[in-house]
Amino acid sequence: MNSILDRLTGLRDAMRSRGVSHYLVPSADEHINEYLPRWNARREWLSGFTGSAGDLLVGLDPRETFLFTDGRYHLQAERQLAGSTIALERVGTKDAKTLGQRIGEFAKAHGKEFALGFDPAVLAIGTVEALEKLVAPYGGRLVPIAGHLVDALWSDRARPPTSTLIECPPEWTGASVATKLDALRQHLSKLDATATVVVKLDQVAWLLNLRSMDDVPYNPVFEAFLYVDASSVHVFMHAPNRRIERDARAAIPGLVTHEYAEFVPFLERVEHARVLLDPDATTYAVLAALGRARATTVVRAASPIELAKAVKNEHELRCMERANLLASFAKARALRWLDERIEAGDAVTEASFRDRIEAYYADLPGYRGLSFNTISATGKNGAIIHYGDAGEHPLRVGELFLIDSGIQCDGGTTDATRTVAVGTPTAEQRRLFTRVLQAHIGGAKAVFPEGTSGAAIDALVRAPMWSDGLNYDHGTGHGVGAFLCVHEGPFAIAEPKRRANAVVALTPGMITSIEPGYYRADFGGIRIENLYVVKDLNKVVDGKRYFGFEPLTWVPFDERLIDRAELTKAELAWLDHYQAESARRLATVG
Amino acid sequence: MNSILDRLTGLRDAMRSRGVSHYLVPSADEHINEYLPRWNARREWLSGFTGSAGDLLVGLDPRETFLFTDGRYHLQAERQLAGSTIALERVGTKDAKTLGQRIGEFAKAHGKEFALGFDPAVLAIGTVEALEKLVAPYGGRLVPIAGHLVDALWSDRARPPTSTLIECPPEWTGASVATKLDALRQHLSKLDATATVVVKLDQVAWLLNLRSMDDVPYNPVFEAFLYVDASSVHVFMHAPNRRIERDARAAIPGLVTHEYAEFVPFLERVEHARVLLDPDATTYAVLAALGRARATTVVRAASPIELAKAVKNEHELRCMERANLLASFAKARALRWLDERIEAGDAVTEASFRDRIEAYYADLPGYRGLSFNTISATGKNGAIIHYGDAGEHPLRVGELFLIDSGIQCDGGTTDATRTVAVGTPTAEQRRLFTRVLQAHIGGAKAVFPEGTSGAAIDALVRAPMWSDGLNYDHGTGHGVGAFLCVHEGPFAIAEPKRRANAVVALTPGMITSIEPGYYRADFGGIRIENLYVVKDLNKVVDGKRYFGFEPLTWVPFDERLIDRAELTKAELAWLDHYQAESARRLATVG
Repeated sequence: MNSILDRLTGLRDAMRSRGVSHYLVPSADEHINEYLPRWNARREWLSGFTGSAGDLLVGLDPRETFLFTDGRYHLQAERQLAGSTIALERVGTKDAKTLGQRIGEFAKAHGKEFALGFDPAVLAIGTVEALEKLVAPYGGRLVPIAGHLVDALWSDRARPPTSTLIECPPEWTGASVATKLDALRQHLSKLDATATVVVKLDQVAWLLNLRSMDDVPYNPVFEAFLYVDASSVHVFMHAPNRRIERDARAAIPGLVTHEYAEFVPFLERVEHARVLLDPDATTYAVLAALGRARATTVVRAASPIELAKAVKNEHELRCMERANLLASFAKARALRWLDERIEAGDAVTEASFRDRIEAYYADLPGYRGLSFNTISATGKNGAIIHYGDAGEHPLRVGELFLIDSGIQCDGGTTDATRTVAVGTPTAEQRRLFTRVLQAHIGGAKAVFPEGTSGAAIDALVRAPMWSDGLNYDHGTGHGVGAFLCVHEGPFAIAEPKRRANAVVALTPGMITSIEPGYYRADFGGIRIENLYVVKDLNKVVDGKRYFGFEPLTWVPFDERLIDRAELTKAELAWLDHYQAESARRLATVG
Repeated sequence: MNSILDRLTGLRDAMRSRGVSHYLVPSADEHINEYLPRWNARREWLSGFTGSAGDLLVGLDPRETFLFTDGRYHLQAERQLAGSTIALERVGTKDAKTLGQRIGEFAKAHGKEFALGFDPAVLAIGTVEALEKLVAPYGGRLVPIAGHLVDALWSDRARPPTSTLIECPPEWTGASVATKLDALRQHLSKLDATATVVVKLDQVAWLLNLRSMDDVPYNPVFEAFLYVDASSVHVFMHAPNRRIERDARAAIPGLVTHEYAEFVPFLERVEHARVLLDPDATTYAVLAALGRARATTVVRAASPIELAKAVKNEHELRCMERANLLASFAKARALRWLDERIEAGDAVTEASFRDRIEAYYADLPGYRGLSFNTISATGKNGAIIHYGDAGEHPLRVGELFLIDSGIQCDGGTTDATRTVAVGTPTAEQRRLFTRVLQAHIGGAKAVFPEGTSGAAIDALVRAPMWSDGLNYDHGTGHGVGAFLCVHEGPFAIAEPKRRANAVVALTPGMITSIEPGYYRADFGGIRIENLYVVKDLNKVVDGKRYFGFEPLTWVPFDERLIDRAELTKAELAWLDHYQAESARRLATVG
């Protein structure tokens, strides 16, 4: 832990020499990633906290140094920050302050002495503008500092890989790079723009039909920026000519490759362009560079790539169906293996189950890797929502066991959670599982008109739990990429106060998880998660189309945990169909 | 209609002399009212359209002159605009453009020649800033013009009344003006503000415990502005010393009265203040005037008065309970009268039913007037959501009849809709009514944790209809004032895409309507509306309080229209309790 104190001291020295009172180290990097390549994990290096979400505000005054993270990571952050002198803000709990509230408070306290330094290359435009509004009324200021202050201290920083990228065949993508570029350019011209900048790695990978298993753990993306105009696709990346092979180069019309570091200097030389930027998906450094470009203006709009990527075409859907059926097969197989071991009285641990299911995954045709860190949690460990410490804890009869896992494989990405009884469950376990199952079914069986957003589905999922005074402190569903990131936008099934994108309309072809849960430290955890495709039901009433959800995940639910007498007729009908259809589909794999 | 053409010609002459290409005449006035005093109904005077929502954009080019209104008013606007040369944008329908889209389009087409004139006294700050963003990228500009251009043309404009205001006794308000001012000043100091401006008439009336039945139809408010600082309450109104009687003056600590027209000049003379403004509830003229004031800054935040007004105290709740029970009694009585007439074969028309229920209302103790224009609609007329033309249409056996009405009375405001069968209903009428009833019950029986917003309740209401491909093109619920406006903020039960305030948390003491409906031109209309109080269920789970709805309206539902076999156990339990409790409570009035 000493090293953390030394690093903070080093940073504060750098802050003093730049004349700033505070410095913001966001969780994200130059690509506004949720999951970072390890060479960009600056907040982790500086603080010791390894969670995927948590911004760090460092004050010259150690008492003004805080890490902000949400309910998923409170326990983990407490442990990892112990002895660091960094205070933890448990965002979402009573009396906890958000980053914005703390910055407002310090701005007020310090007045004109408040100077918040930040690297414009790692903050979104929208974030910087929101910070500006917090600070300005008190006479404080924001100080963009080119070059992250952490980088100068970080001597043993890893270097990016230069391995060859995977070229996705048409059977996976269903659309050539040329087709995707055409659609993008049409969208740009509708918005009166002549070019756009792409900063998000999953957008880059999707648009170029390229992937890497070597850059970011679990996410088959690679570090690159794009500048797309009417005739060219400028790619900025490490060792571009080594990483993109000849065939892949030929598939990208108008490709011009540049070294990664050329990105900002290139933008400063742009001329006579109207460049579309998504303020929430583009860094402030891009806006600043284009501000120095000649006769160039910026058009602000939501990224058209994010929506195009989320709405899967027939080929992508077929790959996702296959990937999720295969992963379901492995999960059902592992759960059968577990039942047999428990019945035989053999010892199974969280780690041995994890190893078993990961071995079954590795057997699957086209397997490429996990899509996230497997969560294998028994008993009370199930209450830790992002439990990543599967160890030698044995699964004991009478406990609930929770397995949340997924894979990357040719053309597809999977994510599913099952909670099962170890032996015979208690009445309370059955009651609570049944409520979470009713919540899951409340979303899965929903029928809704076009224009409906995730906020509505979130309420339908939570309502059966709310009536019993039950709830869960996380979102209900996230988008999933096709052989891409296991979390993607632009929509979310969530409460609108929790996620602004909960108001984005659900559109046929989008893939979402539905994953209600229940967690209590003295009880453990329950989560029931499937992936679904938003389907057009081919039913038009009063000029509105109606949509519903079709499952991609087919792992039967544990009947020992279901109190069928509690279910409504509609819930029973959905459940019976799902259980029968799972068995039928899994039989086609075996 | 000729007069409309003359008025438009007169306005265009004035626009030319001010050098603007377009002029915006919003529906709202100096107080951002939904319902206007008739002397401020400029858009109505200019266009002939009388609906409560509809902004008018006038171009020098008649082809760039549009009225924008929503689904409630499409039919009415079509009729009223015939021959006016004003084109109608049916907002919400396919291909219709919004005001913002049209302004963007014209700004693009005219470039630097685009100059949009407006009166800064009648547009909210947020509206002006949003328009600025639409226009600026094309080199166009906004031209604030003090003094509404319509006013110079409007020779026979009515004059505001000077009648004495009603002073609300403590039994109605539950809080003195002094108490309300204390709470407001505490909130201001928490936000680091020293003063605030109040522009919305219901906020003024609530804060001063004063009402008028003479200014705005149906809304017991009066035309005034407030400037509240640490020691004084400056009131700007017509004939203040005549309208506010001695006792009422004594109840307002620090009262300073001014003539209405003194408001903006007063603001320009403010010194050394930090003034809280709600950008959506304050006009741009206020911001501009304070911009000219010495050493004065503006603090932007949602109005604390709006939330304080929405959360009713025990006295207000008791008045609302009594008012709504009395109004329920009158409605139930009128519906019994209707059944007897139909059984006897007597003729009843929309107008005769309306007159009958309004006579029963007028009999109630403490009756002050209607809270909105009674909607009395039979058969296909029920499909016109804001049908205001009750006429000699007879109610025919086999039709559905819809009555939506409410009153203002001592301390309370009411609003309720019933749809009943005239004689024996058809199978389709029963099926559709039952679905709308299930939707209503889906909201009414909801249990939800603190922090839940109207967006969630909206989904619970719509879901039973969605599953059958049914829906309605209006919000699900609105706040209701206590002897105040029948529509108030700050929350709404609605889809978040329709209403931004659908994400405001529901809080115990708030009063809301729940009013799902079903409308089809060839069928007619169904709407089922009750008012409810958000109640703390005194149930705390995992540190979160749980809330539910308690009815204020007690008019039994028409059992002839309910197919009980379609209801779930939970829906039946709610219905049985409501029907029995309605009968019991109504018996206490008779």
